[in-house]
Amino acid sequence: MKLTVVGGGSTYTPELVDGFARLRDTLPITELVLVDPAADRLELVGGLARRIFARQGHPGTVTVTGDLAAGAAGADAVLLQLRVGGQAARQRDETWPLECGCVGQETTGAGGLAKALRTVPVVLDIAERVRRAAPDAWIIDFTNPVGIVTRALLGAGHRAVGLCNVAIGFQRKFAALLGTDPAEVHLDHVGLNHLTWERAVRLGGPDGPDVLPRLLAEHGGAIAADLRLPRPLLDRLGVVPSYYLRYFYAHDEVVAEQRTGPSRAEEVARMERELLAMYGDPALDEKPELLARRGGAFYSEAAVGLAAALLGGGGPRVQVVNTYNRGTLPFLPDDAVIETQAAVDGSGAVPLAVPALEPLYAGLVARVTAYEELALDAALRGGRDRVFRALLAHPLVGQYAYAETLTDLLLAHNREHLAWA
Amino acid sequence: MKLTVVGGGSTYTPELVDGFARLRDTLPITELVLVDPAADRLELVGGLARRIFARQGHPGTVTVTGDLAAGAAGADAVLLQLRVGGQAARQRDETWPLECGCVGQETTGAGGLAKALRTVPVVLDIAERVRRAAPDAWIIDFTNPVGIVTRALLGAGHRAVGLCNVAIGFQRKFAALLGTDPAEVHLDHVGLNHLTWERAVRLGGPDGPDVLPRLLAEHGGAIAADLRLPRPLLDRLGVVPSYYLRYFYAHDEVVAEQRTGPSRAEEVARMERELLAMYGDPALDEKPELLARRGGAFYSEAAVGLAAALLGGGGPRVQVVNTYNRGTLPFLPDDAVIETQAAVDGSGAVPLAVPALEPLYAGLVARVTAYEELALDAALRGGRDRVFRALLAHPLVGQYAYAETLTDLLLAHNREHLAWA
Amino acid sequence: MKLTVVGGGSTYTPELVDGFARLRDTLPITELVLVDPAADRLELVGGLARRIFARQGHPGTVTVTGDLAAGAAGADAVLLQLRVGGQAARQRDETWPLECGCVGQETTGAGGLAKALRTVPVVLDIAERVRRAAPDAWIIDFTNPVGIVTRALLGAGHRAVGLCNVAIGFQRKFAALLGTDPAEVHLDHVGLNHLTWERAVRLGGPDGPDVLPRLLAEHGGAIAADLRLPRPLLDRLGVVPSYYLRYFYAHDEVVAEQRTGPSRAEEVARMERELLAMYGDPALDEKPELLARRGGAFYSEAAVGLAAALLGGGGPRVQVVNTYNRGTLPFLPDDAVIETQAAVDGSGAVPLAVPALEPLYAGLVARVTAYEELALDAALRGGRDRVFRALLAHPLVGQYAYAETLTDLLLAHNREHLAWA
Amino acid sequence: MKLTVVGGGSTYTPELVDGFARLRDTLPITELVLVDPAADRLELVGGLARRIFARQGHPGTVTVTGDLAAGAAGADAVLLQLRVGGQAARQRDETWPLECGCVGQETTGAGGLAKALRTVPVVLDIAERVRRAAPDAWIIDFTNPVGIVTRALLGAGHRAVGLCNVAIGFQRKFAALLGTDPAEVHLDHVGLNHLTWERAVRLGGPDGPDVLPRLLAEHGGAIAADLRLPRPLLDRLGVVPSYYLRYFYAHDEVVAEQRTGPSRAEEVARMERELLAMYGDPALDEKPELLARRGGAFYSEAAVGLAAALLGGGGPRVQVVNTYNRGTLPFLPDDAVIETQAAVDGSGAVPLAVPALEPLYAGLVARVTAYEELALDAALRGGRDRVFRALLAHPLVGQYAYAETLTDLLLAHNREHLAWA
Repeated sequence: MKLTVVGGGSTYTPELVDGFARLRDTLPITELVLVDPAADRLELVGGLARRIFARQGHPGTVTVTGDLAAGAAGADAVLLQLRVGGQAARQRDETWPLECGCVGQETTGAGGLAKALRTVPVVLDIAERVRRAAPDAWIIDFTNPVGIVTRALLGAGHRAVGLCNVAIGFQRKFAALLGTDPAEVHLDHVGLNHLTWERAVRLGGPDGPDVLPRLLAEHGGAIAADLRLPRPLLDRLGVVPSYYLRYFYAHDEVVAEQRTGPSRAEEVARMERELLAMYGDPALDEKPELLARRGGAFYSEAAVGLAAALLGGGGPRVQVVNTYNRGTLPFLPDDAVIETQAAVDGSGAVPLAVPALEPLYAGLVARVTAYEELALDAALRGGRDRVFRALLAHPLVGQYAYAETLTDLLLAHNREHLAWA
Repeated sequence: MKLTVVGGGSTYTPELVDGFARLRDTLPITELVLVDPAADRLELVGGLARRIFARQGHPGTVTVTGDLAAGAAGADAVLLQLRVGGQAARQRDETWPLECGCVGQETTGAGGLAKALRTVPVVLDIAERVRRAAPDAWIIDFTNPVGIVTRALLGAGHRAVGLCNVAIGFQRKFAALLGTDPAEVHLDHVGLNHLTWERAVRLGGPDGPDVLPRLLAEHGGAIAADLRLPRPLLDRLGVVPSYYLRYFYAHDEVVAEQRTGPSRAEEVARMERELLAMYGDPALDEKPELLARRGGAFYSEAAVGLAAALLGGGGPRVQVVNTYNRGTLPFLPDDAVIETQAAVDGSGAVPLAVPALEPLYAGLVARVTAYEELALDAALRGGRDRVFRALLAHPLVGQYAYAETLTDLLLAHNREHLAWA
Repeated sequence: MKLTVVGGGSTYTPELVDGFARLRDTLPITELVLVDPAADRLELVGGLARRIFARQGHPGTVTVTGDLAAGAAGADAVLLQLRVGGQAARQRDETWPLECGCVGQETTGAGGLAKALRTVPVVLDIAERVRRAAPDAWIIDFTNPVGIVTRALLGAGHRAVGLCNVAIGFQRKFAALLGTDPAEVHLDHVGLNHLTWERAVRLGGPDGPDVLPRLLAEHGGAIAADLRLPRPLLDRLGVVPSYYLRYFYAHDEVVAEQRTGPSRAEEVARMERELLAMYGDPALDEKPELLARRGGAFYSEAAVGLAAALLGGGGPRVQVVNTYNRGTLPFLPDDAVIETQAAVDGSGAVPLAVPALEPLYAGLVARVTAYEELALDAALRGGRDRVFRALLAHPLVGQYAYAETLTDLLLAHNREHLAWA
Repeated sequence: MKLTVVGGGSTYTPELVDGFARLRDTLPITELVLVDPAADRLELVGGLARRIFARQGHPGTVTVTGDLAAGAAGADAVLLQLRVGGQAARQRDETWPLECGCVGQETTGAGGLAKALRTVPVVLDIAERVRRAAPDAWIIDFTNPVGIVTRALLGAGHRAVGLCNVAIGFQRKFAALLGTDPAEVHLDHVGLNHLTWERAVRLGGPDGPDVLPRLLAEHGGAIAADLRLPRPLLDRLGVVPSYYLRYFYAHDEVVAEQRTGPSRAEEVARMERELLAMYGDPALDEKPELLARRGGAFYSEAAVGLAAALLGGGGPRVQVVNTYNRGTLPFLPDDAVIETQAAVDGSGAVPLAVPALEPLYAGLVARVTAYEELALDAALRGGRDRVFRALLAHPLVGQYAYAETLTDLLLAHNREHLAWA
């Protein structure tokens, strides 16, 4: 089994490699290829990857290359984990929206649109080249904004599934709080990527008893603190929103923090410099502690599980992924991409039916889906007016004057990444 | 034909009576009853109504009463135009939301929710008493928020249609700008009450040529100025939003104005005092000029047209009303109430099919519909938590901390009108 | 020695009485009179006051009366501690300024101006009646805003000194942190009432070594947490600002809290209800624990010290009070009232010289002094324009549109307390 | 008479040269030297300057040079009109403060501080070199922020006077409205540079009748519109504030505009490109119309008048300049620089006495003077803490969290211009 990681020079990669090593019974990789244009980083990360495999006695090979076609040739699965423009572009995404009093964030709001515009054309180009090199390979997209990118991939006819670590993170955390095995924890997790709510936490299986009320009663404070959301919000709603809903439910508070604190991009850039320095140490043969603070926890478990389901040949496995709606949420178009529990096997992912989504969540999901449709249109076809419309449609912008100004700022700060601008 | 006006002591009533007099060929009223608990106002308004009928040679009678059952007995149609709590409650609706930086307005946002909570139980009680007194009467609701109130009436099984003067206002204004007869102007008007966009202006019939691009090119400046919206917004979108969309597209600008200007309620209260003083003048036998500035232009034309269609016995007439969605906007529940062109006859109103709503508008319509469902739930069943949820669902609130505070403020300012609070 | 407390029915009074009892060697009161128009409260508080004196073996008498002239007749000192409009007015002071995004507070900003306008005429009337009943009595003003009220009293020729517990609070807290006797701690405390900075903390006497740098190094975190100010602010400036400077240095943060939290007035009103219920218990003969959370800590120590200095006949004592500037801060008018260390004896209070105030503080002091002059002018002479000018002059308002709106709101919410409005 | 213009390549220069030509009887220049490091611009501007002199028959020579020492050698007066960092730096000054909700402006607020930090060291270096080349020359500073720059020059012992065109602009405008000769109009103009109020408009001489009340009654609307300030502000105060007070009195409104409109720097940069293209036209021999929209109207009249007074040998002339306070405003330090009417002759400028400044203005002047002192300290001595303190002292910042963030932004955006950063 050959697996290729595009953006393999990312500092995330050792997390992934560590998972491949630990979970080799689930996903028996024989050849792992890391593809990245940044040869220096690739060297550092590839070296550590080989040492991790070696230390854990994994028999597979690890190779690195800057040549996508070569790296993807004959692959069974290709993981996409790239960041167009790097931390510098992210730093800008987190900054200029503040000029209009809007949150600066790289996966939602005006900053999220900027990232989508930069990323979609690059990902589509990569996917096309992968298709030529490995026509049957599955594409697993971990590149943000996952919802929009996955919709772009599916719309272009690729065999693609979008993946995020929010759901697996909740599963592991809740299992720890409940003192049970994560495999026993089934989430009623639904919405769009980065716009989800855990509505039930079932034990033993998808029809098991719902322990979410007990979880909130006993650990609501800790859960809320972790999400940096007010505890009464969880208690009043009886659900656990994803961390990213903080940008909606506490928007102005976040803006106030962002105006006076260091940007997340700066923190991450600092961490990345430290991590790369560590990776270069020939004595290091496991993922360092610091990597946990980089984000992306359990990403490797999620990726291994998904790849195993897509490639493994056994029966379908249930997993939270991003895929076509197909009537699951009846108020959305069939070709909207949602994030939900799906049955995944060699033929792809099909969402499981979900109880009707309450209006409090459905209203927001519908509006953000409309934004995502306009964002994708702008990413595919370009043009100032399309950017303006996507911004006006976003619930965290919504006002004419801000949409106009943010359009100008987005274009000014991203011109080098937008072929049409 | 007997027609009863509940809230007949309103200063609006002479506008309505003037229309009944002018349009008596369309709607041959023989008995007009004005019902109102405020005997003083009723006396003043009733006197003027009689003088208007007399001056125009209308043969119908005008009676006034404080007794709803008597006034409604045997009526063919009952118009509801009331304001629970009067201008004082409205003045509060326009003020306390500002404490959270949210718009203060009586039909949308937190103030609109307050009005819905005050109004729905009163209207349902009146409708129930009307049903006993006149089981076959049509109820025409002009009471705001019209969308929520109409949904409440239909949900309780009443023969009801919701009416607003926004669409007829655009029809008349566009006809004037085009130099043509209003009857020739057909609007592609769609959305929710106070959340609509004119997407096409067709001449001659629903399939006539669309002159909206020409209208915007030639008169876009005047139309935008009238709506107090930036002209480039109209040009970029190619549609004409309703005036009420200013609370969304220019929210912060409106809040800045409201913080420093007199409230609309104060202006209206002043106007009402002036109007009532005029109405008492026995020499006055027509609606005064000042009434035009009170809002509600063409309300009587719209009401006469709708009543004539419901009661007239001819074929269906096409008119913009508020009624059940029934699949017209497929992304909304069938029992959502939308505002759109409908075929109206003695059996009620059925929406005409409309072209797919663009995501830029559909996203907002879906979200506000979700809010309206939660608002109606709060109005019918009460409880602090339901109020909180409706506020959190509203796109002009949306944040946890504001929803909490606004819930407290709403309850503090409306306790006397909320039986459960 | 006869001492009269105007506003003696306040829930604060037991704090004062407890101090009189404990410190009877410093201030040998023979007759204590509590004056208050609220007979019910006065009864409860007066009963507890007698029981506190009895328990501690204090030989003085405690009487209560609603008759100011009788209560003040022959008094040696009269303490003013009243609140015109009660907690209800305060609650409004804390609320309506938020409509303009301005802090809601009863001693500064627009709310502080409202309180000044309500209070100054009442205090001047009381002082005039005291002068007639006891021409030689000293008036000790603890009524907020102390700076403006003291300036009004001095301007009308009264023998008055203004008192606040901020300085004594810092002295006690610093002494505790340093593990030393409060009497050893001398503060370089300077500015205006509620706008002061501790610039040095000297041990042993006004020329002792300055331990503030050490105090900040060792306890800066605790001091900052107590003031709810960011620690780096203290470190960067090397001074300790009064708690009230939080309304300046963290204005927007306070507004955000006020918009979503309960008002201080509500908390205090709840506490007052509890306290009064306790005071009615005939078994209670000491000040209850809860009173400490009411604010006003060490008020009695400060009041006893000041009264003893004014009446005691010994040499002058150095104490922080509010009195005429007389060139102490050379950039302020001589008749501005400042808060600073003063030599106090039977002839009154004379400020000690202070090192030049740094521009960072002097600029703010000068601007607030200008506001206070305009506020006093508005309080004495009335008129919408004077209120507007005071608001425009206040650094927490400063903008035209807000000054206009806040003028209207101030008048609307305080009309019953403003004879001229 | 030799006159040297440093920054002579500015697009402003033709305005100045036109004035020199028209007013040659007042100021008989024989040699005009334009000094600028930008040879291209200097060539264009110098050519036009020669053509203007030629067309108007002015006998003086115009030379251009990049060598300051040569250009200044033997000069009688040196005008400073430079912009360190050009329009690009200004564009940044107008942008990054918005991230904290603070006005972006190059002469006040955080942007004004940035400009002061960039400019003061450069101007002091130039002045030192001028002193060596022409020890007796007068330095006329037109470089912003004029108040801080002039204080820096005077503090370093230079023969310097600061000049701004606000006062002469009002004089000309009022004269036009009154239909009288500007020379007849005497202003009671007082405050700091860009923080002034016209308190009286006297006809015929400094003791003539005050026609400001009449001017406001008859032309208040036009004056307010021109300043973009609300007319009632002028009526209530009975004074005319400088245009720059809009950044104080309508701060939030300006921020809202800046967030959604093009920056002034962008407009000016566009205009400069157009102007330079015009200047290159050998047929052009007068200042083009467009230059009037560049700002700086009547700058040449003011400069000619000032230079004539300093160099002319006649008795003193009264003119509005920036110079040492020397007790004129008794609440400011003697060495603060104020902007006021002064008697100017060959020995320099001495302020005329002014009536006491009302507290409403004095409070703001005192606070901004404190800021200017801290700003100058930061400009001369550098260091993050000094920048922080200046920002905390500024009335348009004032809050801790913003001061911290703005310090970081200021340093990040100006590092190349700050030797110590």
